[in-house]
Amino acid sequence: IRGSVDVAAKLLKEKGLSPVVLEARDRVGGRTFTVRNEQTKYVDLGGAYIGPTQNRILRLAKEYGVETYKVNEEERLVHYVKGKSYPFRGSFPPMWNPFALMDYNNLWRKMDEMGSEIPREAPWRAPHAEEWDKMTMKQLFDKICWTNSARRFATLFVNVNVTSEPHEVSALWFLWYVKQCGGTMRIFSTTNGGQERKFVGGSSQISECMAKELGECVKMESPVYRIDQTGDMVEVETLNKETYRAKYVIVATAPGLNLKMHFNPELPPLRNQLIHRVPMGSVIKCMVYYRENFWRKKGYCGTMVIEEEEAPISLTLDDTKPDGTVPAIMGFILARKCRKLCELTREERIVSFKFDMSTNPQSSLAQPVHYEEKNWCEEEYSGGCYTAYFPPGILTQYGKVIRKPVGRLYFAGTETATEWSGYMEGAVQAGERAAREVRALPKIPQNQIWQTEPESMEVPPLPFVTTFWERNLPSVGGFINFLGVASVLSFATTAGLLAYKKGLLTRS
Amino acid sequence: IRGSVDVAAKLLKEKGLSPVVLEARDRVGGRTFTVRNEQTKYVDLGGAYIGPTQNRILRLAKEYGVETYKVNEEERLVHYVKGKSYPFRGSFPPMWNPFALMDYNNLWRKMDEMGSEIPREAPWRAPHAEEWDKMTMKQLFDKICWTNSARRFATLFVNVNVTSEPHEVSALWFLWYVKQCGGTMRIFSTTNGGQERKFVGGSSQISECMAKELGECVKMESPVYRIDQTGDMVEVETLNKETYRAKYVIVATAPGLNLKMHFNPELPPLRNQLIHRVPMGSVIKCMVYYRENFWRKKGYCGTMVIEEEEAPISLTLDDTKPDGTVPAIMGFILARKCRKLCELTREERIVSFKFDMSTNPQSSLAQPVHYEEKNWCEEEYSGGCYTAYFPPGILTQYGKVIRKPVGRLYFAGTETATEWSGYMEGAVQAGERAAREVRALPKIPQNQIWQTEPESMEVPPLPFVTTFWERNLPSVGGFINFLGVASVLSFATTAGLLAYKKGLLTRS
Repeated sequence: IRGSVDVAAKLLKEKGLSPVVLEARDRVGGRTFTVRNEQTKYVDLGGAYIGPTQNRILRLAKEYGVETYKVNEEERLVHYVKGKSYPFRGSFPPMWNPFALMDYNNLWRKMDEMGSEIPREAPWRAPHAEEWDKMTMKQLFDKICWTNSARRFATLFVNVNVTSEPHEVSALWFLWYVKQCGGTMRIFSTTNGGQERKFVGGSSQISECMAKELGECVKMESPVYRIDQTGDMVEVETLNKETYRAKYVIVATAPGLNLKMHFNPELPPLRNQLIHRVPMGSVIKCMVYYRENFWRKKGYCGTMVIEEEEAPISLTLDDTKPDGTVPAIMGFILARKCRKLCELTREERIVSFKFDMSTNPQSSLAQPVHYEEKNWCEEEYSGGCYTAYFPPGILTQYGKVIRKPVGRLYFAGTETATEWSGYMEGAVQAGERAAREVRALPKIPQNQIWQTEPESMEVPPLPFVTTFWERNLPSVGGFINFLGVASVLSFATTAGLLAYKKGLLTRS
Repeated sequence: IRGSVDVAAKLLKEKGLSPVVLEARDRVGGRTFTVRNEQTKYVDLGGAYIGPTQNRILRLAKEYGVETYKVNEEERLVHYVKGKSYPFRGSFPPMWNPFALMDYNNLWRKMDEMGSEIPREAPWRAPHAEEWDKMTMKQLFDKICWTNSARRFATLFVNVNVTSEPHEVSALWFLWYVKQCGGTMRIFSTTNGGQERKFVGGSSQISECMAKELGECVKMESPVYRIDQTGDMVEVETLNKETYRAKYVIVATAPGLNLKMHFNPELPPLRNQLIHRVPMGSVIKCMVYYRENFWRKKGYCGTMVIEEEEAPISLTLDDTKPDGTVPAIMGFILARKCRKLCELTREERIVSFKFDMSTNPQSSLAQPVHYEEKNWCEEEYSGGCYTAYFPPGILTQYGKVIRKPVGRLYFAGTETATEWSGYMEGAVQAGERAAREVRALPKIPQNQIWQTEPESMEVPPLPFVTTFWERNLPSVGGFINFLGVASVLSFATTAGLLAYKKGLLTRS
């Protein structure tokens, strides 16, 4: 999220320095992208969601008077699986099969447990860092999960959170990613989680307000192609043939986009190789507009979790405006599905959606009136969205240089954050930290470079309370062992499971 | 291997066109790099080895009168494992433990079998492409191998062949890579394999001769940072502020280095993402010079296969000149070991070698007289060496666009080859193919773009003959099943194994 560099510039300017912001595109905002038009009023085709514990971005929004509203989750959600829709409430679809239930419960519990061992600021120092980094998430799921149902949902969980496939990402990295967002519940939830809210008027407003405040010093359409540190000042050249000289430079691109620049002297070996090793995920964000909000009338909130190989879209959320106007459904085409569809034209893609929209009960009657989409895979200056992922083996070998300064170059960008990295919140943390690093020489004490953020009053987080059963329900493996060891007790356990199934099913 | 672009230019010029070659560095040759100095006469610090079936590079060398010589493998090789040296003959170290023997034999056989299913020009169409691409080589080894000894050697096999770790690479990709080099024996062997020979005078001579032949049209120190296809002619700009206009452009960098260029219009989505997903391996090539060739006097050829976590170097080869002068040992620091050492200074690295040199029996008495090294991880315009690798999931999703033209841009570089991709041979195949593609519009018939190469007379390949036992020895798993099914027969089998152990051990 290019917000990172604006954030850094803002902080530097407030401290009396005179930064220049070089923006590759003809707009600010980077991976956030608010489009305004008659049909939609406004629409976020890039980063959009915010939620509790994302205190930095909430603080910035408040400063600029940008308000938030809750994504609609009043009515029932829909879980579409094996050709059928199952309405539910809560963050995760419930499981009725007792084996699947044990398996799901164990999956989330295990991921959060493993995450708790991983230091957010240095995942490569986790006690099992080497072992987990040699594994893909697919391998971990194959190890943890006993049921296909859990494995399939786990795949969707990776697809939705990091726009890549379980077999593509390091287990260490993904577990770290979920952990630094606050765990499996926080990252995946709408209410009380990462998707709780959106900005009234769109997310790009934050970058736009900052750019306005910064004024002339923000240079648009200025992709940097050369950074020279051989002289007294760092020299930076842009495609539009401007040359800038600065004491320090903050590079706030995704790590892989450092490659767009030619460095003199060359980057140190580990950074030179790191930036070839952290690709961006694959996503097309789609918005389908309807004449009326038919799903709410039928008692559905608009959220659909779609497990169906043939369906392009894996997750939908209501994208109707807070005042109830402009009824719309947002859908993500993710990872493998994105790569299958990303070379089609917009028109061909619309046809392929037929399926998804009809998975929402009775929606097949509704005709879309407008469509918006953004294929992030085609963006040269993002490389993909939402964020960079680490394939197996990379985090332990290269992770430690991700924000290590190189001479007078400092690194921001959401990928360098340690809380909500990959989100707008991470971009703000990274931008402010990098700005303090620059100023730190020698004005800011070292121990103030990293600052904690007071909790937002307007969007307070609620704790996620785990139930006795969530903590103590055995895994399928544990259950089978238990049966083996003491099969006489199995009746009681099954009875307990049934009781659980009746009353305490949802995880919310 | 930047040779690719010179090759293309040469072919185009011969056909009456007037190509311009834009070279980022102050020298030609790319990933080949011959240094000349008093102490070494000449030394290849980059790509150096050639062997039978590499007919294109052999043809080019012959054309320029560059001769080859055999890497010394007259005397015994050394396998260093668990703190001890074991002299041997043949391409692979022999195994004395019957379980290890079955396991090794099965490992190579299995890899070659799997490779035989993979089309060299389209690995993503292999019958099991999806399944194998979701697996890392580590996973495959864990599945195939029963003994630690086989697993450890398999790791070294990946390290040596593709300068990366088994857990970093897709099984589909690595199996394809070995296959398109002619199999496990061809790729790993010195005699009759990929390391059989070197060029007298160094490998860069080929590119240098081509550059000389091409003359003025080769522009040095001209890194390309912008490619614009919006006009009638493709416009190309270089860091040294030159602008070139051409009808067609052949991009002959490693795929990841396409990122150094800003494209207008942007690359299509799949290529835009592919180039972030194929990192270069990690290697430091080291040469240690001695006053005399003490290893040959002791009956060792200079080849050492070193399995020892603490040893920086995993493979050595004799690098003495063909006339016996300038005694030297070449050693590779590979993958994880390379990353551990690559931010040290040259001097610190020399200290860390103490261990390796003493693994060569009696060598500790010998004092090096000179040292040369090249850390390829620090090269901005290579990104690493020898070649790009595909992490899990990438080959099936993005592989098909690796050499797909984009408007008037064509793609060469050894990574786009289908025979000996990753080697100088692959660079020549790719460069000539790309040149024919450009000419093909419409002068060359489509079916002549890909051409087979007649076999070199001077360096003919020998077939690798497998023995009855190599074909029929059971795997450890098969053997154990067999024992279970018919344990009465086990005596006979064990006896057979013992017989094998006595007489037919080496794989050569």
